Amino acid sequence: MNNKVVIAIDAMGGENAPKKNIEGLGLFLKQNKNKEDFYFKIYGDENKIIEELNKNNINKDKIEILNTLTVVSDDETPLTAIKNSKNSSMWNSINSQIDDGAHISLSAGNTGVLFVISRMLLKTIDKVNKPALAGIWPTKKGVSVVLDLGANIECDENNLVDFSEMGSALYKSLYGDEKPKVSLLNIGSEEIKGTEIIKKAHSKLKELSNYGDFEFTGYIEGNQIFDGNSNIIVTDGFTGNVALKTAEGTAKFLTDSLKESLMENFLSKFSLIFSYFSLKKFKKKLDPRKYNGAIFLGLKGPVVKSHGSTDAIGFYHSIDLCYRIIKGDLMNKIKNNLKHIDAKN
Amino acid sequence: MNNKVVIAIDAMGGENAPKKNIEGLGLFLKQNKNKEDFYFKIYGDENKIIEELNKNNINKDKIEILNTLTVVSDDETPLTAIKNSKNSSMWNSINSQIDDGAHISLSAGNTGVLFVISRMLLKTIDKVNKPALAGIWPTKKGVSVVLDLGANIECDENNLVDFSEMGSALYKSLYGDEKPKVSLLNIGSEEIKGTEIIKKAHSKLKELSNYGDFEFTGYIEGNQIFDGNSNIIVTDGFTGNVALKTAEGTAKFLTDSLKESLMENFLSKFSLIFSYFSLKKFKKKLDPRKYNGAIFLGLKGPVVKSHGSTDAIGFYHSIDLCYRIIKGDLMNKIKNNLKHIDAKN
Repeated sequence: MNNKVVIAIDAMGGENAPKKNIEGLGLFLKQNKNKEDFYFKIYGDENKIIEELNKNNINKDKIEILNTLTVVSDDETPLTAIKNSKNSSMWNSINSQIDDGAHISLSAGNTGVLFVISRMLLKTIDKVNKPALAGIWPTKKGVSVVLDLGANIECDENNLVDFSEMGSALYKSLYGDEKPKVSLLNIGSEEIKGTEIIKKAHSKLKELSNYGDFEFTGYIEGNQIFDGNSNIIVTDGFTGNVALKTAEGTAKFLTDSLKESLMENFLSKFSLIFSYFSLKKFKKKLDPRKYNGAIFLGLKGPVVKSHGSTDAIGFYHSIDLCYRIIKGDLMNKIKNNLKHIDAKN
Repeated sequence: MNNKVVIAIDAMGGENAPKKNIEGLGLFLKQNKNKEDFYFKIYGDENKIIEELNKNNINKDKIEILNTLTVVSDDETPLTAIKNSKNSSMWNSINSQIDDGAHISLSAGNTGVLFVISRMLLKTIDKVNKPALAGIWPTKKGVSVVLDLGANIECDENNLVDFSEMGSALYKSLYGDEKPKVSLLNIGSEEIKGTEIIKKAHSKLKELSNYGDFEFTGYIEGNQIFDGNSNIIVTDGFTGNVALKTAEGTAKFLTDSLKESLMENFLSKFSLIFSYFSLKKFKKKLDPRKYNGAIFLGLKGPVVKSHGSTDAIGFYHSIDLCYRIIKGDLMNKIKNNLKHIDAKN
């Protein structure tokens, strides 16, 4: 197992678990059948997992099943999670980074509980005050990292600076860019705009820009996120969560309206024969499953949260994300970036 | 002029002014040619305005031109606006509510300057601490009012309560609903979620719900805005502005990608022959020009801000909005709603 990426998976989290989780694993194994540099530790009900593995003809060479019968309920609240979720498949998959050699953990289960357990078991990196949830967004030019998407409803300027360094490390580990562009989300592009906290973060990031971890490009507004000129977009968890969900809601509203229009009469339905492949390509490019997986950054080990309602393809993409994060050496890149915050002070 | 809606228009604000402003006015007059219950006061360069009126064959019966040669520049900042913008077409169109019998003012000029001048000239309503910018959003079920869209970057619970009462008054004056549904924008639907300010606003709105101005339905998340189950969505100006611009950016990104896909090859282009009318209907339904015009609420007179970059059709819609706001008796409805905040204390 040396030099192999070890991924711990909570097989019981999310809708249709463990079916979609194991099917997604099958897709990853098929896609990477010539590689030998990874290994999976699967936490959950062994009987159910084996049943799904067999159904999908999945070879068990690169898999270890760790039988875990407790499952975190969707109704569990973060307040009682620590008491009730001990030794659940979610808990054990995170704890696997401490006791069992895993490099990263993945779950599609209850988000609030995942945060609480991850923080408690893995602890935050020294000098990082608040961990953040980062997502990958499609843009006109490719993809961007947006954080915080909801881990912290209130953030000060130091948190925003930490998010910038950690977000840059994530971008570098995934896309190999040595000097990505960081922007702060604001409601105007002039330096005088925004809250006191954002203005202070602006001046700190301007200074840090000299250390080479990233290039700070100043403020951007919500409509510029999709332009793709910024590789990392930094904001507090309240604003980030509202932006994420508003974007999801807008996309759903538009695509539903489009579908309705194209299905409304014979002529428009007939047109679909000719536009079928183009529309399919459009849909594929923006398929949210391709961007499934939010990364919990700032803990001593990385944790990826898959959408609970995604399917096997979405879950496959979050497994792939885990693999690429570790291959890209995320944790060392974060450590390295964070050094410069100290150096500056 | 008694009993007539008197609308003061800044003819010189926005891109392509006064061309689009006067063309938009022409559209309104054509659309309402059988009505006698309105009158326009047009502020700006008289020669240019008359030229545009003649070009568009617009009858001058319901129009008075007040020659004003100063124009607020796009580069003007709110800090120096009061000194530099005095007696500009924007200034005079707002001041028209004080000195010249106008009921409402409309401008497509510099937003920051419009806020500052409006506040200074019209003053806030007694007991309203902060005015708010409200917008009309299309939804699955019709339209909703969203506020604050950027007038106040920080708001306390009392501001959010004021916004709820004022937003309800706006909704009632435009759509005649006597008990619209108010929701608070948050990052989860449970009562324990959100900042302290939001939680306090939640409990105050729950109490106020008994007075009948609106029904408070609790929290909603960004992805629910477009569902249309809430008629009024209340948030602070920072979050509201980010949500608005993120929605605009998402819509642009999606429609650009769709256009690209449908134009990519002969077959997909050919399909447009059959889907043309359906796609046109789709586009028309969601045409942002139909929702052009943000309403500055909480001042002793209403001010409408048109998008600077809109065209004549967009400007027409904001004129129509002005007319409907006054016909719907907005100011009395606001006064009436605000009474209940006092009654409760």
